[in-house]
Amino acid sequence: MTSTVSTKSSSRLDHLDKSGTVFAEMTTLANTHKAINLGQGFPTLPVPSFIRQAASDAVANECMGHQYTRSEGNPRLVNVLSKFYADKIGRVLNPLTEIITTVGATEAIYTSMQALVSPGDEVILMQPFYDSYPAAIELSGGKPVVVNLAPTRTPAESSADWKLDINELRRAVTKKTKAIFINNPHNPVGKVWTREELLEVGQVAQEFDLVVISDEVYETLVFSDSPEKMVKFACLPGMFERTITLGSIGKMFGVTGWKIGWCLGPADLIRSCWMIHQFNTFAVVTPLQEAAAASLEKAIETTYFADTVKTYQTHRDHLVSVLARNGLKPTIPHGGYFVMADTTGLKLPKSLTTTTSTRRDYRACHFMTTEIGVTAIPPSAFYERKVGAGGDVPGRHARFAFCKGLDLIDGAGERLDKYFGDKNKRQKI
Amino acid sequence: MTSTVSTKSSSRLDHLDKSGTVFAEMTTLANTHKAINLGQGFPTLPVPSFIRQAASDAVANECMGHQYTRSEGNPRLVNVLSKFYADKIGRVLNPLTEIITTVGATEAIYTSMQALVSPGDEVILMQPFYDSYPAAIELSGGKPVVVNLAPTRTPAESSADWKLDINELRRAVTKKTKAIFINNPHNPVGKVWTREELLEVGQVAQEFDLVVISDEVYETLVFSDSPEKMVKFACLPGMFERTITLGSIGKMFGVTGWKIGWCLGPADLIRSCWMIHQFNTFAVVTPLQEAAAASLEKAIETTYFADTVKTYQTHRDHLVSVLARNGLKPTIPHGGYFVMADTTGLKLPKSLTTTTSTRRDYRACHFMTTEIGVTAIPPSAFYERKVGAGGDVPGRHARFAFCKGLDLIDGAGERLDKYFGDKNKRQKI
Repeated sequence: MTSTVSTKSSSRLDHLDKSGTVFAEMTTLANTHKAINLGQGFPTLPVPSFIRQAASDAVANECMGHQYTRSEGNPRLVNVLSKFYADKIGRVLNPLTEIITTVGATEAIYTSMQALVSPGDEVILMQPFYDSYPAAIELSGGKPVVVNLAPTRTPAESSADWKLDINELRRAVTKKTKAIFINNPHNPVGKVWTREELLEVGQVAQEFDLVVISDEVYETLVFSDSPEKMVKFACLPGMFERTITLGSIGKMFGVTGWKIGWCLGPADLIRSCWMIHQFNTFAVVTPLQEAAAASLEKAIETTYFADTVKTYQTHRDHLVSVLARNGLKPTIPHGGYFVMADTTGLKLPKSLTTTTSTRRDYRACHFMTTEIGVTAIPPSAFYERKVGAGGDVPGRHARFAFCKGLDLIDGAGERLDKYFGDKNKRQKI
Repeated sequence: MTSTVSTKSSSRLDHLDKSGTVFAEMTTLANTHKAINLGQGFPTLPVPSFIRQAASDAVANECMGHQYTRSEGNPRLVNVLSKFYADKIGRVLNPLTEIITTVGATEAIYTSMQALVSPGDEVILMQPFYDSYPAAIELSGGKPVVVNLAPTRTPAESSADWKLDINELRRAVTKKTKAIFINNPHNPVGKVWTREELLEVGQVAQEFDLVVISDEVYETLVFSDSPEKMVKFACLPGMFERTITLGSIGKMFGVTGWKIGWCLGPADLIRSCWMIHQFNTFAVVTPLQEAAAASLEKAIETTYFADTVKTYQTHRDHLVSVLARNGLKPTIPHGGYFVMADTTGLKLPKSLTTTTSTRRDYRACHFMTTEIGVTAIPPSAFYERKVGAGGDVPGRHARFAFCKGLDLIDGAGERLDKYFGDKNKRQKI
């Protein structure tokens, strides 16, 4: 049920798409057509018992464990985050000044833009992008400036084939540029950036004195066949002082509903973020921050992260196999939750009953949902408007999530097999 | 440990006080001096077992109960909120379009200002005010315009003695005025507004076509000696369509660390708020929204709310007695968590070791913390700057919280008795 916004709304809402998100659109469509939903990126895997136990222990507290914690972050959680990142960033973060917790990485994105961007400032994004980035920039009065992360061959074999043209990035910088967003591992492509690629981005940031917002929420989900290990942007020479690194308990432990994330970085940038945070949400949920801290303490001591990578890699491989055998050529992702698949093998009718969109990827995702019973997300939602109309990169692709039970992935495979099998049979007759 | 903000900060941070909040200042001082802290408004009372049980049940869920819930609000929670408010507002709220949940009432305040206020718009506040209001207005590019809620006699007997001059409110309206904040029951005064007073405010809102933000987080804590029952602003004739009502699970169930609040109102205003919410925090913590829903379902069926009022009233009466017998004349509050006390009976030395503030109330609260061992909040923090220097209303008062265990309240009483007893003895010699 969609209402219209009030005529009394702030002018800042003029920048936003009033029709709602692609996730709401595709989820509603999936539910209506009883499609298997491989759209939105939340896990359907069981939450490990040690994480549920930590939550159970935290809420058993009789009193103060249910009250406001420190606005900057629960002390136990910021301490274990400092410990967790010491090797990865190559320095011991001051837990009291160099970390704040936020209401998921989404608040971290929003808050960092409010903290940094003055009206008229520009912020550079790479498309495809997480859809919160441009919205957060525009809500801060800034202007998103978009450069392309694009496959160097068509179709791409793996996410490593998707590259940034560093000269395009350099040309995008103006006197108004304040910051660059980078996402590693990348959603939706699954790219794990090489050190060399990151150094090039860092060189541009240094040259033009820009802040880098490094969204690393999938940092613990890098697969064994990735040609590059995870390199945190803040660990590159000279980069810590200009980088705000974003992270997420939701992605780290498969509990997106806990809504706990963070900003890490130099004390002055983190203090700026906190100035907004204190009056935006004030503090993050106390008992689940305590549970997140206990879970991370345990995960560090056990094989949790390695085991989780193995599990997700198995799910990835199932999905890749399902897509490949049905001609929906997948880009093998080296990290994260998603596969970009080339859907140009799918013949679409001229008109569809559920959408009037002229974007090929929206039409393909509607068609797959209603006719095959499998739902993916059209990636042109992660690009500037006016793309996806034909054979361009977003128009050719659909984004499938594999953070789902094998029953769902294999179930989607059966439906795709049936559709393409029947279709091939018909074509052979 | 306070850092300075980054030189790369947005110009919007220029509006904020960089020195941090009065709560952080007084809490640090209380801890340093081992004072009994009756400052910040979080309960130290045990959380009832049915509420802890609801949380425990929610986190025991193995999978989907830990994932993102609906961005607009957990379905079970918005449904029970609709039921809870049906009689109180005199209409059945549509749970899908007329309610969104937020990360505490703080996000509700922030989000509603971002949703409504365009740069240059004015929003009217009554001082003393909750300190998030002016910050949220200024962060939206708006201008806070302040009118006074002031005692009609000195010292006031009860919170009903604190009145708004409706002509002052009317004179404060300009062509740029967008909205009025009202807080009922009022923090820090404890005033429960009469229907007549609310109708007068509503008349001004109607006449000038203003939105009313009615912060009613203490709505379930109205004491038996209040001359007026709680009247929700949105239930007044013609007011629903222009009112955003704010509420809080934290205050309703004494669990401030759960960080769950809401905005209620007409679908168009609520949709405007959601447009910000979706890109600010996206959604609120899933398992504790489920627990909040279960708790509210139970509370509606039991005597929880009546019992809680009785408990808090007992705590209020202890604190009032402690203050009165030591000459710190209390304004008897009819609702909420706080007592405003007149501290002019306290003789302050010319210089203090812990503060150089020239505000009398800051000096009094520092002196009480360091010399008596009892911490309160100086109310000039809830006024525009340049007040509190002498015998004005904020300068005369201190705000004490009674949402604290009786051991703490009575312990503070003993310390005050000892200080004033010794002092009186000394004066008699």
